[in-house]
Amino acid sequence: MNMDTKHAPIGIFDSGVGGLTVMREIMRLLPNERLVYFGDTARVPYGSKSRDTIIRFSRQIVHFLHTKQVKAIVIACNTASAYALETLRREIPEPIIGVVKPGAKTAVSVTKNGRVGIIGTEGTIKSQVYSDYIHELNPELTVIGRACPLFVPLVEEGLLHDAVTDEIAGRYLDGLKRENIDTLILGCTHYPLLRSTIGRIMGDQVKLVNPAYETAVELRDMLAKQDLLHTGLSEPTRDAYQFYVSDDASRFRSFADSILPFSIDCTVQIPIEEYEAQ
Amino acid sequence: MNMDTKHAPIGIFDSGVGGLTVMREIMRLLPNERLVYFGDTARVPYGSKSRDTIIRFSRQIVHFLHTKQVKAIVIACNTASAYALETLRREIPEPIIGVVKPGAKTAVSVTKNGRVGIIGTEGTIKSQVYSDYIHELNPELTVIGRACPLFVPLVEEGLLHDAVTDEIAGRYLDGLKRENIDTLILGCTHYPLLRSTIGRIMGDQVKLVNPAYETAVELRDMLAKQDLLHTGLSEPTRDAYQFYVSDDASRFRSFADSILPFSIDCTVQIPIEEYEAQ
Repeated sequence: MNMDTKHAPIGIFDSGVGGLTVMREIMRLLPNERLVYFGDTARVPYGSKSRDTIIRFSRQIVHFLHTKQVKAIVIACNTASAYALETLRREIPEPIIGVVKPGAKTAVSVTKNGRVGIIGTEGTIKSQVYSDYIHELNPELTVIGRACPLFVPLVEEGLLHDAVTDEIAGRYLDGLKRENIDTLILGCTHYPLLRSTIGRIMGDQVKLVNPAYETAVELRDMLAKQDLLHTGLSEPTRDAYQFYVSDDASRFRSFADSILPFSIDCTVQIPIEEYEAQ
Repeated sequence: MNMDTKHAPIGIFDSGVGGLTVMREIMRLLPNERLVYFGDTARVPYGSKSRDTIIRFSRQIVHFLHTKQVKAIVIACNTASAYALETLRREIPEPIIGVVKPGAKTAVSVTKNGRVGIIGTEGTIKSQVYSDYIHELNPELTVIGRACPLFVPLVEEGLLHDAVTDEIAGRYLDGLKRENIDTLILGCTHYPLLRSTIGRIMGDQVKLVNPAYETAVELRDMLAKQDLLHTGLSEPTRDAYQFYVSDDASRFRSFADSILPFSIDCTVQIPIEEYEAQ
């Protein structure tokens, strides 16, 4: 592996802004890496769309990231990880990881009573991908999934601490509470923003798993194993991070500024549907 | 105008399923017309996306409808009508109408006290297009807009009659109530499904305007004026109606079946982003 590849950026993508919570963890854990983020804000959300459509969109994004000569790709979106990861892995040369496997792995190590809950979009839950990964690691565990379609719009409307969100969360989580789970995976990158509401409803005995941090750890381990870690010691400058979106950049910036530890000066809008398979 | 053109279908499009409420009115008023519906279910919703993106998407859809040799086009989506109608009208040869002008016209004729409210997506409200049309007709009127971003997700989650929807609607409409309006335009094709909730909150003294019916009337008048009305007398058969979507067809069918007076046998998924400007 030559130095050029080590110094190449890592590509990260999501349906919109939620993946920035994953990017933030990667910035913290791998401060020397250059990162290119793409948010598919023109076609957000992914959660209620079909497998084929999500694979098509993800493929276009990967082709866009290839134009940035990325050395590795992180799918920072649960729905796209659920539907597109295995397909993309067969199609591209560079390593690619999603958020689902790290989240599943953590849940398996955390649960004491063997009963794990998972909340996510309709697509993520329907795919059963969390359940599949968990059972690969430990077939004895019981996994109970629940789609929470209103959580993303509630977060985007800013109702993080609100009676309506409490009421909706109560309904979504009621069945999971009665299932006696001791671990709950926040299987959508927006959900950590509702952590306090979800935690209060589920109670202290249920441990909440946010796959973002574990994804950063898996990324680091994978890069190290493949001798792809950036070995420089310099602190990254702001221009180490590039942001691209498919819709107007200004809306993205204001949300990004609330998640990231610095403000984004420059976000570039690109016509993502033109990045077809080469 | 030759007979072939009169017998050509009318194209109708929306970001998803909401435009079917407009199609239903067109079916009733113009039972002899053939109709081609396109729902952009892979990229829904439009309401929170930018003008440029909505114009780009709408242009692709119009190019797709051209492959069906439509004689006229109806934009059955408030956001796309608000952002894309005037641009598209300059670009294409056949007549095209939206839902905004008919809704505005009705509101102007309905209001007694000159105070009109309009609810819609962020895009529709921000565009001020309802307000502009209303002031063209009567500059004396006062128009008050309010975006209601959670209404679409609540409808799609099926919470048509629910305490949470009541609570959210109460918050959105509270300001409008205090503005002493006597007319309220339901400026999004999903909102008629919340008519009873909205009506109860606004009270009997506020008349609700649903642009769907008036859009069908405007379409009929425009076709008549341009000698484009289908003059046959035969009742349409099911194959007079064609349905196309950009995501998986099955989800669309189940919602469509709840809106239309018959069940849809065949909906075809197409790759809409490939219909670029020729």
